[in-house]
Amino acid sequence: MTVFKNGTLITMDPQRRIITEGAIAVQGDRIVAIGKATEVRARFPDDQQVDLKGNIVLPGLVDTHVHLAQAMIRGCADDLSLIDWLSKRVWVLQGNYDEDDGRTSAELCILEMLKSGTTAFVESMIAGRYGFDGIAEVVKRSGIRAALSKVVMDIPTYATQTDIMYPGMKEDPEVSMRQALEAHDKWQGAANGRIQVWFGPRPPGGCTPELYRRVAQHAAERGMSVTIHLAEVQADVEYIRREYGMSPTEYMESVGLLGPNVLLIHAVWLDADDIARLARTGTHVTHNPLSNTKLASGIAPVPEMLAAGVNVSIGCDGGPSNNTYDMVRDLRWASYLHKVRALDPTIMPAETVLEMATINGAKAMGLADQIGSLEVGKKADFIVIAMNKPHLTPSPNPVSTIVCAATGQDVDTVVIDGKIIVQSGRVLTMEEERILAEARERAEKVYRRAGIEVRPQWPVM
Amino acid sequence: MTVFKNGTLITMDPQRRIITEGAIAVQGDRIVAIGKATEVRARFPDDQQVDLKGNIVLPGLVDTHVHLAQAMIRGCADDLSLIDWLSKRVWVLQGNYDEDDGRTSAELCILEMLKSGTTAFVESMIAGRYGFDGIAEVVKRSGIRAALSKVVMDIPTYATQTDIMYPGMKEDPEVSMRQALEAHDKWQGAANGRIQVWFGPRPPGGCTPELYRRVAQHAAERGMSVTIHLAEVQADVEYIRREYGMSPTEYMESVGLLGPNVLLIHAVWLDADDIARLARTGTHVTHNPLSNTKLASGIAPVPEMLAAGVNVSIGCDGGPSNNTYDMVRDLRWASYLHKVRALDPTIMPAETVLEMATINGAKAMGLADQIGSLEVGKKADFIVIAMNKPHLTPSPNPVSTIVCAATGQDVDTVVIDGKIIVQSGRVLTMEEERILAEARERAEKVYRRAGIEVRPQWPVM
Repeated sequence: MTVFKNGTLITMDPQRRIITEGAIAVQGDRIVAIGKATEVRARFPDDQQVDLKGNIVLPGLVDTHVHLAQAMIRGCADDLSLIDWLSKRVWVLQGNYDEDDGRTSAELCILEMLKSGTTAFVESMIAGRYGFDGIAEVVKRSGIRAALSKVVMDIPTYATQTDIMYPGMKEDPEVSMRQALEAHDKWQGAANGRIQVWFGPRPPGGCTPELYRRVAQHAAERGMSVTIHLAEVQADVEYIRREYGMSPTEYMESVGLLGPNVLLIHAVWLDADDIARLARTGTHVTHNPLSNTKLASGIAPVPEMLAAGVNVSIGCDGGPSNNTYDMVRDLRWASYLHKVRALDPTIMPAETVLEMATINGAKAMGLADQIGSLEVGKKADFIVIAMNKPHLTPSPNPVSTIVCAATGQDVDTVVIDGKIIVQSGRVLTMEEERILAEARERAEKVYRRAGIEVRPQWPVM
Repeated sequence: MTVFKNGTLITMDPQRRIITEGAIAVQGDRIVAIGKATEVRARFPDDQQVDLKGNIVLPGLVDTHVHLAQAMIRGCADDLSLIDWLSKRVWVLQGNYDEDDGRTSAELCILEMLKSGTTAFVESMIAGRYGFDGIAEVVKRSGIRAALSKVVMDIPTYATQTDIMYPGMKEDPEVSMRQALEAHDKWQGAANGRIQVWFGPRPPGGCTPELYRRVAQHAAERGMSVTIHLAEVQADVEYIRREYGMSPTEYMESVGLLGPNVLLIHAVWLDADDIARLARTGTHVTHNPLSNTKLASGIAPVPEMLAAGVNVSIGCDGGPSNNTYDMVRDLRWASYLHKVRALDPTIMPAETVLEMATINGAKAMGLADQIGSLEVGKKADFIVIAMNKPHLTPSPNPVSTIVCAATGQDVDTVVIDGKIIVQSGRVLTMEEERILAEARERAEKVYRRAGIEVRPQWPVM
């Protein structure tokens, strides 16, 4: 049993209580008490005590859209058009990965996420060549919580964007489906329940309706979740309209892929009918503000979705599209971006954004009864923000301080499943120096194999 | 003489050379050599050597729009409408400052700027009650470079936004003008030229055309610069049209306030004629992407201004509007925001944004021959970004790594005027702990005097 004491606890519980001079008692992987420090300590006077020094404690952040394999190609395609970004850089580089690259990129990505306060994430598309088992082992050892989605596909391109696809990104439909089911058999619920396995079908343009229906059926039979990119750019909507005569959400519904076990990625170009359909079916959406702005996809109608009752969470997306996996930094984008879109500074207040990054993320992962808030009986997944810094001083509202001023580099401590994973900013479960060196080395080799050189626009001497 | 060796130097010189394994030799306040480390070290083998360990070196960042007095009221008005933001929080709090508050807020702000790599800044509006001399003394001792603008005003409200103004924010026009001229007499060129004094007239709605003409005349006679908020929100444009029958830039030109000694702040709501007028007159613009998004002012036509030949730089603005003074973090906004506005991911590449934050800022400050690039004969103002971190790994393009992935917390070393001001992230010239404690204490007293309490939307226990 450990008592974490003297913190300002942003609980995210149903009443959204904020407890100053609070304490959390943890036994095993669970929170067994939470409240004013004096009361909690009186109940557990003899247990190990960790002093939080007045810092802010909040539920671990849930990043609901991650491409692990893209951490190692961070910055490979800055300031390019989407077609070039995809077909000349991202696919070509990822198509040259082997399983060691897949594992190293996952290590780099998880290292960054842990250091910046992400305690759970949804990886959306693990290709066969990245090596599912190796990645799952990294998740297990690192101590993070994850839903790992295996790619399935049966159209060898991403037809809404381009007819080209790098051969290394192609998977045989039967092989990709079998690998997804095998991964689920092997890893679902592993590591004390920290690992889930989901389906990660390619977006429309990469799968036929038949394949989507098979995914939906397997998912229903096994209680699996599905995450899928939808309506990221205008061309996606036009493609679905042209091919199937439906709106993006109509099409998804027609193949059985709307519902409480489905997490849509991006959902930028939706109309009011689409939004109503998501609300009615209980479908989740992950908003990815950095990716959508950098790739100039558009600004998703997040306030409208929230108003309609859609559960919207937040994702960092990938190294070439963000370019970081720092949820804390992305909170500010998820607030300000919608203010300027609507020319209304009162929408998307800090409190709403923090809900998206915690409890809404937990709902999207089907874990709302386990994580996403600090409550007795839930998993002990929480982070501590070190507050004694110029850019966080003063802090009249701890919620808006986190959203408007903090970065992941302010995260001092991370606890997942009751275990201290990050302490004083150091990840205890991973070898940072080794991973950074290996990521640099492997990235260089991948670029060489792919025949790609990335340089600044300026002369390098 | 000191030789800083083994860095990747992003010089921002006229050829925009990037020098790998480079070195900079510094004598007194100047760069005396720059080039490949082997060559520079061969010329100065016996001098003190500082190992940059392969990190990235770039010219110190120039923040061209800062409200020093607002650091201490960071987070006072999050998620409010602009009128409430201004008239119920910012003015009321600032109107309750005394000179000790003004000095402490300046210390907090400069501490944050130095730690995050800002080596020069333009403060736009020092009110009489903040104590100009005390603030100038902080600048002098801290080692930073600054243009300090003294408020002048003769309309006691900010009429384009509201008829209300907190009494404490009002200044007698003759007193405010006299204080500006006295400050210029006393401080212009002080601290080895690190301090400039500018005029900071209130925006249209706060000054009569007559006062603006007096400012323009004094500025011309003394070689002073002027910085002024213009066309931040649509209401500003409507006001000027209604009162004077002109566009914002026509009006500014009519009172003598366009030209190479004028730095306009925001310039969000400009049309093509306005932009052409700024280009023709050589007027500078500071773009403030965080402030404009958070306050929902709009997205300034920065690509259009740059294409027309207007010199555009970047500013963080203030604690209630950003909420941080971290130029590195704001670079990403100055890139991605314009991509999504234009739905074009190729505009505002990282290279352009870094120009805005360095050499364009130097131009805006009238210091293009002194700072803004790493060249022999220029002042030694530069910063070192520590690269061995997960979120900066790998780094195929050092320019886009800085813009798309770094934060001010990655700044390891800051050199200004040839002196090491920040080392291993610690500001050598300022007492961080004392300043943070004092800022908290003074902020609390200011809130109490103003009768303002800021709380989260959620219950605090």
